[in-house]
Amino acid sequence: MTERVDTVDAPVPGSGAGRTPVTKSRLVEAGRALMIERNAVDFSLQDVAARSGLNSALVKYHFGNKDGLLLAILEQDAGHAVAQMRKLSGRDMTATAKLAAHVRGVIETYHRRPYMNRLVHLAMHELGPQAADQVAQFFVTPLVAFQRELLAKGVETGEFRPVEPVFFYHSVIGACEHLFVSQAAMRRVFGEQAFDDDLCRRYSAHVVDLVSRGVLRDGGEG
Amino acid sequence: MTERVDTVDAPVPGSGAGRTPVTKSRLVEAGRALMIERNAVDFSLQDVAARSGLNSALVKYHFGNKDGLLLAILEQDAGHAVAQMRKLSGRDMTATAKLAAHVRGVIETYHRRPYMNRLVHLAMHELGPQAADQVAQFFVTPLVAFQRELLAKGVETGEFRPVEPVFFYHSVIGACEHLFVSQAAMRRVFGEQAFDDDLCRRYSAHVVDLVSRGVLRDGGEG
Repeated sequence: MTERVDTVDAPVPGSGAGRTPVTKSRLVEAGRALMIERNAVDFSLQDVAARSGLNSALVKYHFGNKDGLLLAILEQDAGHAVAQMRKLSGRDMTATAKLAAHVRGVIETYHRRPYMNRLVHLAMHELGPQAADQVAQFFVTPLVAFQRELLAKGVETGEFRPVEPVFFYHSVIGACEHLFVSQAAMRRVFGEQAFDDDLCRRYSAHVVDLVSRGVLRDGGEG
Repeated sequence: MTERVDTVDAPVPGSGAGRTPVTKSRLVEAGRALMIERNAVDFSLQDVAARSGLNSALVKYHFGNKDGLLLAILEQDAGHAVAQMRKLSGRDMTATAKLAAHVRGVIETYHRRPYMNRLVHLAMHELGPQAADQVAQFFVTPLVAFQRELLAKGVETGEFRPVEPVFFYHSVIGACEHLFVSQAAMRRVFGEQAFDDDLCRRYSAHVVDLVSRGVLRDGGEG
C-alpha cells in the first residue's frame, strides 16, 4: 500500500508533472486541501486529479487507491507532529513547560489539519488491520512514548505526581481533540462561533491549565 | 422521523407482538444489542427483525427507517443519562463530590453503551440537520447546562476556580470518551487488554483526579 516507486512518472499532458516526489507530494497536497475545504475525508480520485492537475491514474500508481493516499497524508502529518515532539523532548525546559508546549502543539495540529482526527479513526477502524498497525506505529506509539518520558521526567524532578501514562494519553488527547470532533454540536448548542485562531488559543490555555494542575504534585507550582 | 403512533400493531405471525410500546421497546432493545455485539452502529432492518422476532416493516412503521431507530435508541440512552444528572444535581453533596460522580457516570455510560459516542457523532454529522438539532436538544444542551450549574456552584462555595463552561464540556467529555473511541488503537499499541469493569474503574479514577485537581481552587482540597 505504501510501496515507493522511485521512477519517473508517465508524463501527463499539460500538467508539467515531473519526477515522482513532486507528483506524490502534489497528490498529497491536493487530497489535504480537499479535506480541509470540505471538512470531511470525503473525496474521489477524480477530485484529486482535478485539484492537482494530474491524472487520477497516478493516484493508483503511487498509492494503490484512495485509502493509500489517505494513509500517506496521515503519515506525513503524523511525521510533522512526531518531529515536533522529538524537538520538544530535547529542549532544556521544565517538564511543566514541556507539557504545556505539547498540549498547545496537539491542539494546533488539529486546528491546522481539522480532518486529522477523523482520518486517524478511519484508519484505525475501517481501512483494515494493516492500516491500523501502520498508524499505531508511526503515530500513536511515538506519541505515547513521548508522553511517558515526559511524565517520568516530571516525577523525577518533583514537578508531577505519578500518573498512568496510557490513561494520561487517552485523557489528554481526548480533551485536545473533542473541540474539533464536535464542531457541529458546538454550533448547534452554542450558536455560530468563529472557529478561529483565537478560539483555539483560548481552548489551548484551558486544557493546559486543566491538565497541568491535574498532574502537578500537591504543593507544586504551575 | 420520531412521530409516535399510539395504536395497536398489525399482528406479526408467531411473534406474539402486542401493543405499540412493547413493540417499539423490543425494536430499540434489538438494535442496541446488535450494536453492542458488533461494536459498531452497523446493522440492517433484517438483522433487527431477526433479533427481535418482529417484522422489519415494523421498524419502518414506528421509526420511519433505520436512522429513526438509531435516533430513538440514542434518545432513550440520553434520557437515562440526563435523568441521572438531574438526580445528582439535587443531591446534598459538595461540588467536588458531584463532579467526581458526574465523571464516573459519563464513563460508566460509555462503558455500558460503547456504541453511544459513535452514535452521537453519526447523528451530529451524517443524519441531517434535523437529527443534529434533536441530539443537541435532548443530550448536549442539558449536559452543558448541568456542568455550567455545577461549575457555578463550585465557584460559589470556594471549591473551584472559574472555568469556561463550554471549554470544560469539551475537555471533560473528550477525556471521558477517548478510551472508548480508540479501543482499536489501544489494543494495537498496548496489547490485548481486557476492556472490563476494572479498567473502566481505574480510568474513571484517573479522569476524576485529573479533572478535579484541574478545577480546584489553589489551596483547595480534593
